[in-house]
Amino acid sequence: MTTQVFGHKSPDTDSTGSPIIWAWYLNEVKGTAAEPKLLGEPNTEAAWFLNRWDLPRPAIIEDVAEGAPVVIVDTNNPAELPASINDADIQAIIDHHALVGGLKTKGPIQIDIRPVACTATIMYDLIGDIDIPEAIKGAMLTCILSDTLEFRSPTTTDFDREVAEKLAADLGIDIPSYAAEMFAAKSDVSSFSDAELLRMDSKEYEVDGTKFRVSVLETTSPATVLDRKASLMDSMSTVASEDGVDQVLLFVVDILNEESTLLVPNDLVKSVAAKSFEANAEGDTVVLPGVVSRKKQIIPNLKV
Amino acid sequence: MTTQVFGHKSPDTDSTGSPIIWAWYLNEVKGTAAEPKLLGEPNTEAAWFLNRWDLPRPAIIEDVAEGAPVVIVDTNNPAELPASINDADIQAIIDHHALVGGLKTKGPIQIDIRPVACTATIMYDLIGDIDIPEAIKGAMLTCILSDTLEFRSPTTTDFDREVAEKLAADLGIDIPSYAAEMFAAKSDVSSFSDAELLRMDSKEYEVDGTKFRVSVLETTSPATVLDRKASLMDSMSTVASEDGVDQVLLFVVDILNEESTLLVPNDLVKSVAAKSFEANAEGDTVVLPGVVSRKKQIIPNLKV
Repeated sequence: MTTQVFGHKSPDTDSTGSPIIWAWYLNEVKGTAAEPKLLGEPNTEAAWFLNRWDLPRPAIIEDVAEGAPVVIVDTNNPAELPASINDADIQAIIDHHALVGGLKTKGPIQIDIRPVACTATIMYDLIGDIDIPEAIKGAMLTCILSDTLEFRSPTTTDFDREVAEKLAADLGIDIPSYAAEMFAAKSDVSSFSDAELLRMDSKEYEVDGTKFRVSVLETTSPATVLDRKASLMDSMSTVASEDGVDQVLLFVVDILNEESTLLVPNDLVKSVAAKSFEANAEGDTVVLPGVVSRKKQIIPNLKV
Repeated sequence: MTTQVFGHKSPDTDSTGSPIIWAWYLNEVKGTAAEPKLLGEPNTEAAWFLNRWDLPRPAIIEDVAEGAPVVIVDTNNPAELPASINDADIQAIIDHHALVGGLKTKGPIQIDIRPVACTATIMYDLIGDIDIPEAIKGAMLTCILSDTLEFRSPTTTDFDREVAEKLAADLGIDIPSYAAEMFAAKSDVSSFSDAELLRMDSKEYEVDGTKFRVSVLETTSPATVLDRKASLMDSMSTVASEDGVDQVLLFVVDILNEESTLLVPNDLVKSVAAKSFEANAEGDTVVLPGVVSRKKQIIPNLKV
């Protein structure tokens, strides 16, 4: 049976590229039939790099069958995975997030979680010193530049940077100009509805009984998003009630200036801004200097 | 703050040796102050190898403090760990068991779980090609020979065997005679009460609503244990009610003949033997040819 390799719902670049990298490795190096899959539409940056490296877009799956062999990458959170994930035959987990608890396996399997910025960095290390096709190297490089925001994110480790620089050198790619193209693709959000933007790169997180959907929008053009702030804030209550959370928090991350703008639709979010980031929101937005990482800077500080 | 490294409750050789190996590595190679700890009295084989390699017996701890840095080895099961484990600062998990779910970490940490027979095998690979003191190599070798029952267990991988043989060669140790000494130490259970024997190497496991304490006693002298079968069966109901399970299953594993004897105190266990192992128990014991591994052969087949 073909092993399905997938990342999380609402696939970003790492959750689109890492399944492609690992399925290649399983097929070509380990001799295990494998296919990359997606759990939703890839975001604009992910769609851009598939095109850039002439990689076929993986099929989207809704759920997994009982006993189906799967490899999970870039998450270990059942909430971000198919509903039947614990009935599948999970063969490996490769990830770089906090252990959430909830996934169970029937026997001992390969689980490799490391405190690096990107799943593809771990895969590069696991794959080792073999011939890797250019498109797979391109996917690895894009994943790392995406997850590290071109090394700006505080999640970046020396090893992420070293791997990306090695890959860029092999491919003859100039990182700054390549990253600028990537971020321009990510910043083109014109085709998305407000609700889609609020859900695109978001994780649910509960603080003292209050449930948040913590959304980030990484962009080189924050004004494009902030021009839509009124309708985005209007959509928040609908999205929150549909998704069973109390509040959507939208952080518009300005990649180049390394700061975020938090939308402040009500007193709850105003209080969150004050308690979490010592930020005093006067109007309906507040700028958080230096805040670019949900994992390292937003989630650990969130207070209500 | 010193990092505490520990395995599971009721420490066997791997759960005693792996914390010593990893604490050595953290102290001497990574420059992180670390101490091995135990969550209970080591079994006789573990006590024997500490003495054999002149390794100090780690202190026993009852619980962990909030925020205390810890590394968990040889388990990922909260039920086998200190009550406050999820309040500690878990820094790494190195293990070779099925993912049980339940442990949570505040951020991304190193988690390395692999389908090999022994935690020490993974550590050997992670530590890499550096100078390792003889006593640490001795601990590694003992852990692997113990968990693989000198390569007899079906959990044994080529890599476990390769690492053990390399270590034995480095140490100038003849594996068969060393293993015989180890197993003799493990088989000396004269100082343990019946209740202690039933709990010594046991895991709780639930099948269709029936809770079992699945105990194995690996020995080269099964007759020594089976001579006590009447009083062991008498103790089962007390241990079961004290531990909140429905039934204790005791498998006396004959290491050299590669078979188990299951004690059959009642119709429930008689039925378990029939349904799980197609074994027809005529009296109060039944022999299960080839069954030596709880992980690979007992737990996956258990039916009520």
